[in-house]
Amino acid sequence: MTVAGVMSGTSADGIDVAICRIGAGSAGPAQRSASRRRAGLAAGPAIELLLHRALPYPKALRTAVLAAMNAASTSAAELARLNWRLGQTYAEAVASAVGDYGKPIDLVGCHGQTIYHQGVAAKYAGRNVACTWQLGEAALIAAACGVPVVSNFRPADMAAGGQGAPLVPLLDFVLFHHARRARVLQNLGGIGNLTALPPAAKPPGLLAPDLLAFDTGPANMVIDGLTARLFAKPYDLDGRIAAAGTAHPRLLAGLLRDSFYRKAPPKTAGREQYGALFVDRILADAARLKLSSQDIVATATALAAASIRLAHERFVAPYLQRHTRAHSRIASSPVEYIVSGGGARNRTLLRLLAEELARFGCTVAPIDALGLPSEAKEAVAFALLAWQTWHRLPGNVPAATGAARPAILGQVTYV
Amino acid sequence: MTVAGVMSGTSADGIDVAICRIGAGSAGPAQRSASRRRAGLAAGPAIELLLHRALPYPKALRTAVLAAMNAASTSAAELARLNWRLGQTYAEAVASAVGDYGKPIDLVGCHGQTIYHQGVAAKYAGRNVACTWQLGEAALIAAACGVPVVSNFRPADMAAGGQGAPLVPLLDFVLFHHARRARVLQNLGGIGNLTALPPAAKPPGLLAPDLLAFDTGPANMVIDGLTARLFAKPYDLDGRIAAAGTAHPRLLAGLLRDSFYRKAPPKTAGREQYGALFVDRILADAARLKLSSQDIVATATALAAASIRLAHERFVAPYLQRHTRAHSRIASSPVEYIVSGGGARNRTLLRLLAEELARFGCTVAPIDALGLPSEAKEAVAFALLAWQTWHRLPGNVPAATGAARPAILGQVTYV
Repeated sequence: MTVAGVMSGTSADGIDVAICRIGAGSAGPAQRSASRRRAGLAAGPAIELLLHRALPYPKALRTAVLAAMNAASTSAAELARLNWRLGQTYAEAVASAVGDYGKPIDLVGCHGQTIYHQGVAAKYAGRNVACTWQLGEAALIAAACGVPVVSNFRPADMAAGGQGAPLVPLLDFVLFHHARRARVLQNLGGIGNLTALPPAAKPPGLLAPDLLAFDTGPANMVIDGLTARLFAKPYDLDGRIAAAGTAHPRLLAGLLRDSFYRKAPPKTAGREQYGALFVDRILADAARLKLSSQDIVATATALAAASIRLAHERFVAPYLQRHTRAHSRIASSPVEYIVSGGGARNRTLLRLLAEELARFGCTVAPIDALGLPSEAKEAVAFALLAWQTWHRLPGNVPAATGAARPAILGQVTYV
Repeated sequence: MTVAGVMSGTSADGIDVAICRIGAGSAGPAQRSASRRRAGLAAGPAIELLLHRALPYPKALRTAVLAAMNAASTSAAELARLNWRLGQTYAEAVASAVGDYGKPIDLVGCHGQTIYHQGVAAKYAGRNVACTWQLGEAALIAAACGVPVVSNFRPADMAAGGQGAPLVPLLDFVLFHHARRARVLQNLGGIGNLTALPPAAKPPGLLAPDLLAFDTGPANMVIDGLTARLFAKPYDLDGRIAAAGTAHPRLLAGLLRDSFYRKAPPKTAGREQYGALFVDRILADAARLKLSSQDIVATATALAAASIRLAHERFVAPYLQRHTRAHSRIASSPVEYIVSGGGARNRTLLRLLAEELARFGCTVAPIDALGLPSEAKEAVAFALLAWQTWHRLPGNVPAATGAARPAILGQVTYV
């Protein structure tokens, strides 16, 4: 099956489209019986990336998306139109990528644009409600591309008691699990998140892979927010601004006292937590300390690296040790960190991260070195998740989201 | 297949659940080949209503729904939570109805709560956009009820160039088409709408039934808005308030000059058009004319009846005449109006409607007389539409919505 995965991240830059060939893998057709289903998932489908395209949002659309995200004041009409307009844009992005690919595709998996995500329930209209919301009308994509579309992946996991995130761990497991090595997939998007994969010593036949996954905290979201405010630039190209400054130890230590870093996984962070208000707070603290603009960006970059070190120290290392003890036949080798996301292009962040993790004997390498372009990863993940749903296989990893059970994710729009 | 259809109308009172048995009808399994598919649709599936339940929204939820509808100022968070909260409520409504029914069901079709509908495209973020939006997260219904859910029916029709409404005509055709009689199904919801069915003389094998369907204009929405403002009552019980007043001819004539009534079908009307601002306008005009509160409600009731008479005179009668000429073997008999919706309980409205239509030789009868409870009709329609989608059959009627082609409606959430 040829599947186009479509992703728009919380930074709202635009759309990644990944056209992938996905097959049932070594276990053969996976969808026939419950036992073969389980076997198929554990063996994992075989995935090949055929083409990747990154398409920026049109300017007027990006403005509308940013205005809608966690907007304190918008209208039902505005969001309804935005949902439609995003659907049109996704349809055009897929059509353009398929045109470049030159052959027909069979299925689309579209994540949509998150405009609100609340992983933890709070009181609303007389009931406890957690919720998540992705925009981009799937019917428009199906009609324009002439193939079925799977969309709206997160709610089914939340309906099963999960936090609706992260959903990339299944791809991490399928592509990167290694028989003898412990690996951590560290994504540096707006928010940082990781998937820790113990050596894949478990016998086949497991519906839910054994792994640890959670959000590590703010990454590009805060760095980008500061470069926009201080340098009128959308991001810190190659980490040059941060390289010209020095992280302020006291400000950094204060930021790291945030209770989020101590909270045990599963946990998710969002724009609600690390958006404009958080950037304002850093700027106010920095003004009191009389920091240079470069030092402020350097401190935010150091925060991203240090938050990952804390995650490793507190949660990842103990988890991997427990697992390695349980499978004592496997030789202990250095934990490999494989870094993806826009932050993988920030050399200063990558250098700081390597320094932080070297203390624990970990290696750090960008995902591109393993054959998957960093920017394509999440789009590939939603191609895989669409394939799973099309075959009525679960796509969440309960160990990652906290769900009580595996769930078939998303909704199928036929054509 | 046992299918629960779930409907919440624009009046936002609550939820109708209709549990139906739906089979492939006389043409046998309809989903195998394109030709059998077409045959199956033309013959129409067989539908039996097993149970109907009407459940009011909890008060806090109704308040939230009314606040969100066409709200000039809300937030993404508020709407995201409302989407979730409605999903919970739909899940409980279905579970409660299934409990009463006492046997398992196979599928749910949930319309959701419309909070915005714009059938005609307008400029937005650099593009022409029409849109529609129904809330009520389907994943929560699927998880709670343990069966697949079809939801979000309207966008696929709009993606095919339609206005996304009306969607009840397929049910009207399947249940009420008659070999020798012309029938009009007149629904009196917040907005009035009709489906005109010529004698079903067409040969079988048609994918798209031949019928005329459109919104006739405001019905309960304006009457209810006025009784709420003038009498602090949610609606005019049995039409008693209108019966105590007299419609004001000049105010009524002014209201009927609205260009909507002259516009040729297909056409849709919405809360945008006939909501609070429209009620304000009537109240302002009535104040200038020094009308009593009863006369104001009587005028709104007369408006609903007169708008349907105009629709008959201008569009329905010519259409049925054309069709009858084309099938001259069919004897001309009086057109039967079959009335459903909350307005069918308004005796004054029903009397005025019978008087208006008697001028054209039409008969008027409530749908209950034909064996289908008025309140259950739309919920039954969405059970049928879910069944169609589950079998990958189209659910829209292009003649009704203006779509360029039949479309498989909605999205399937698996469990």
